[in-house]
Amino acid sequence: MTDHSAVIAQADQGLEASLERLFELLRIPSISTDPAYKAECRKAAQWLVEELDSLGFEASLRDTPGHPMVVAHSTEAGEDAPHVLFYGHYDVQPVDPLEEWTTPPFEPSIVTGADQTGNITGRGSADDKGQLMTFVEACRAYRAAGEKLPCRVTILFEGEEESGSPSLKPFLEAHAEELKADCALVCDTNMWDRETPAISTGLRGRVGEEIVITAADRDLHSGYFGGAAANPLHILSDILAGLHDENGKVTLDGFYDGVEETPAEVLKMWEGLGQTAEKFLGEVGLAVPSGEKGRSILEQTWARPTAEVNGMIGGYTGAGFKTVIAAKASAKVSFRLVGKQDPDAIRESFRAYARSKVPSDCSVEFQPHGASPAIQLPYDSPLLATAKEALSEEWPKPAVLIGMGGSIPVVGDFQDMLGMDSLLIGFGLSDDRIHSPNEKYSMTSFHRGIRSWIRILAALAAKKAAA
Amino acid sequence: MTDHSAVIAQADQGLEASLERLFELLRIPSISTDPAYKAECRKAAQWLVEELDSLGFEASLRDTPGHPMVVAHSTEAGEDAPHVLFYGHYDVQPVDPLEEWTTPPFEPSIVTGADQTGNITGRGSADDKGQLMTFVEACRAYRAAGEKLPCRVTILFEGEEESGSPSLKPFLEAHAEELKADCALVCDTNMWDRETPAISTGLRGRVGEEIVITAADRDLHSGYFGGAAANPLHILSDILAGLHDENGKVTLDGFYDGVEETPAEVLKMWEGLGQTAEKFLGEVGLAVPSGEKGRSILEQTWARPTAEVNGMIGGYTGAGFKTVIAAKASAKVSFRLVGKQDPDAIRESFRAYARSKVPSDCSVEFQPHGASPAIQLPYDSPLLATAKEALSEEWPKPAVLIGMGGSIPVVGDFQDMLGMDSLLIGFGLSDDRIHSPNEKYSMTSFHRGIRSWIRILAALAAKKAAA
Repeated sequence: MTDHSAVIAQADQGLEASLERLFELLRIPSISTDPAYKAECRKAAQWLVEELDSLGFEASLRDTPGHPMVVAHSTEAGEDAPHVLFYGHYDVQPVDPLEEWTTPPFEPSIVTGADQTGNITGRGSADDKGQLMTFVEACRAYRAAGEKLPCRVTILFEGEEESGSPSLKPFLEAHAEELKADCALVCDTNMWDRETPAISTGLRGRVGEEIVITAADRDLHSGYFGGAAANPLHILSDILAGLHDENGKVTLDGFYDGVEETPAEVLKMWEGLGQTAEKFLGEVGLAVPSGEKGRSILEQTWARPTAEVNGMIGGYTGAGFKTVIAAKASAKVSFRLVGKQDPDAIRESFRAYARSKVPSDCSVEFQPHGASPAIQLPYDSPLLATAKEALSEEWPKPAVLIGMGGSIPVVGDFQDMLGMDSLLIGFGLSDDRIHSPNEKYSMTSFHRGIRSWIRILAALAAKKAAA
Repeated sequence: MTDHSAVIAQADQGLEASLERLFELLRIPSISTDPAYKAECRKAAQWLVEELDSLGFEASLRDTPGHPMVVAHSTEAGEDAPHVLFYGHYDVQPVDPLEEWTTPPFEPSIVTGADQTGNITGRGSADDKGQLMTFVEACRAYRAAGEKLPCRVTILFEGEEESGSPSLKPFLEAHAEELKADCALVCDTNMWDRETPAISTGLRGRVGEEIVITAADRDLHSGYFGGAAANPLHILSDILAGLHDENGKVTLDGFYDGVEETPAEVLKMWEGLGQTAEKFLGEVGLAVPSGEKGRSILEQTWARPTAEVNGMIGGYTGAGFKTVIAAKASAKVSFRLVGKQDPDAIRESFRAYARSKVPSDCSVEFQPHGASPAIQLPYDSPLLATAKEALSEEWPKPAVLIGMGGSIPVVGDFQDMLGMDSLLIGFGLSDDRIHSPNEKYSMTSFHRGIRSWIRILAALAAKKAAA
């Protein structure tokens, strides 16, 4: 077992330099969904390859039909050490609306938050560059302390996580042998609160879908045609309004097939976390849970499926007024899935429902935007117990096991294609505003995150050695 | 009674010169909504003053806080002759998207259309410079024939019709005595088809309203918050979808107060026009009337009130996908009114309905965008009968009385402020593409329009003399 207190001391001493490296990465606007930023995505990948190279990894950039992968290996721990695959993504979300940012999204800085702690600002600071750099910097601390990494480590960073990961499955398939490990470490998750680390054991799945309704072959004057011509905004509103019933349940045929009730002991564990609607929604200026009636806020967001409209546009949306009946209207809709819900069946059910609402002289088109089933990880794995203990040593409060409302499709892919479970450990906070203007990552998350990985790698190795 | 056949002969002989004068006016880019064209608006007004001056009118340019009015008087017909106020507007719509014009918008020309008839091209050719010049050139033909105008004529041309007419009401109020006449002639309307002239006897009113729903104080991640946080796009869709029932009726409380059934004889007259849903909607690629069930297409667009969503936006609407729950969503909604529907009551009813649908932790704001009641002109006025007869003499087919789905607020202002009904007679065609690229005005509309006014002025005078 390595003496990881020396490594932790290195992490503490090197924090400022660690931060400067993170800033370098944050300055690269690697927005994967927008083709205009293709070169920037590659630049971020290349930056990571060089970084890992400098840490003694055998690192390389791997081209895909989309943005490149970064793969790196460290085998210095030897054959007997545990082998982990660390996964993260270097791409980021778009930054609109830009005018709402109080600091430029790609000029990171440290801003003192309302709670008097420092926050790292910028797009990707929390999702996911800040998080993945906690692991990279943990590796650096081992090197700086003159220690070997205690585990064999493979690193996989992708550049398409924010745009549906189209290249991921083919890449995993083609490189299954190279990427297989004892378990994956996935860092794209949150703590329970700023003092309490968490391991996520459930992840909702996701189906993304775009719907475009076309009515007339041109925009019409609503005086001449109003009352006679089909209005695609009416049709679309009707479709979207009909997705939920008065109790907040989704109305699609077969939508709840495969949804199971959460076990009583799990619900009890969640109750113990003391979350309330007031606290959870109060942070974003809301108060009333809008979802399924009769479910706690944690159940609503961790264990129940949803339908959400993520965007909608049609007709005249500029200043002033224009009496137009639009030719087209469109919306982006996503479904969060739990249990054994089948993403393909849900997509088809949505399409059949929408088609049934479209008049015969209008048309509807659909475009899929990703699909992944929900994931449930075992509560009783020894790896999980070890990581939980290591985390509990680092933070003021012991680690807890939680669910996650978001989707991390790669976890399912690791299960299905590499036969490998994941440990979902990240240091994000619920107020990090990921995907929103003014995204930030707490300095504490970054610093203690680095220290946490140092401890976890050491603990996993010690556990295996003791077995 | 003047021998108007000589005047008509003059109009025929002078057609080429009439056209050249119209072209001069069309070359002036008098776009009222764009401050960059302020001087051009004034130039168009000045051009009209000089034109009317040369015809023996006592014409003047009158400054307003916005673009100037043109007022002109001809009293040579004497006190016993009928007195008409002719209204038109010299301002035009913007021309964007410029690249869709096949001829430059301010370089008028004659282009032979698909139907082998000549069309006058250019912005304002139909709306409204071509139309108003039919009247001016009718006056010129009288003068050229050495005849007095048979009616006392007051002319009012405004320069802000395409930008909401902010100066019109104050001007009418300040000059009520000067502008009052037996009736107004308003030329901003269409024929029934290219062979059948029409007088519009009903105009729908309009209420414009913008609604903004705010939920959370920031955009949220739909994974973390979906199923718990209010989604303004759901709330707005629900509000908009609920505006109509399954029979296409508007559901707002009191919405149909003041709506009267169209008299059976009027419905019968409309039936005689032979309009069908297939023809009307077929022109724009549609087939199925979307409005109130059990009403003909003409009733739906002329005599029934509507609610239309003119625009809607919220969330992520760019390329790709973003799993966001928007903080805000907004829509622009307009109501077309008929009969005695009260615009203010309808606005309030909409607001009360919308408020009732907004959860207590979300907020809703409204912004009004104009309001005008519907106009119904008497079917039995002797002036209307006289004009109808005169029009029927000019055109291949007899004139018909029609409704209009759009709104012309000045007609209501003339009623309310000058106590004067209007005759709505214009020679536009439904394919003139007003407000769009490649606006045109048929040569037949222009030529027979001039001849029509010659006949109408003569007929009105003869009718009064005979009474």
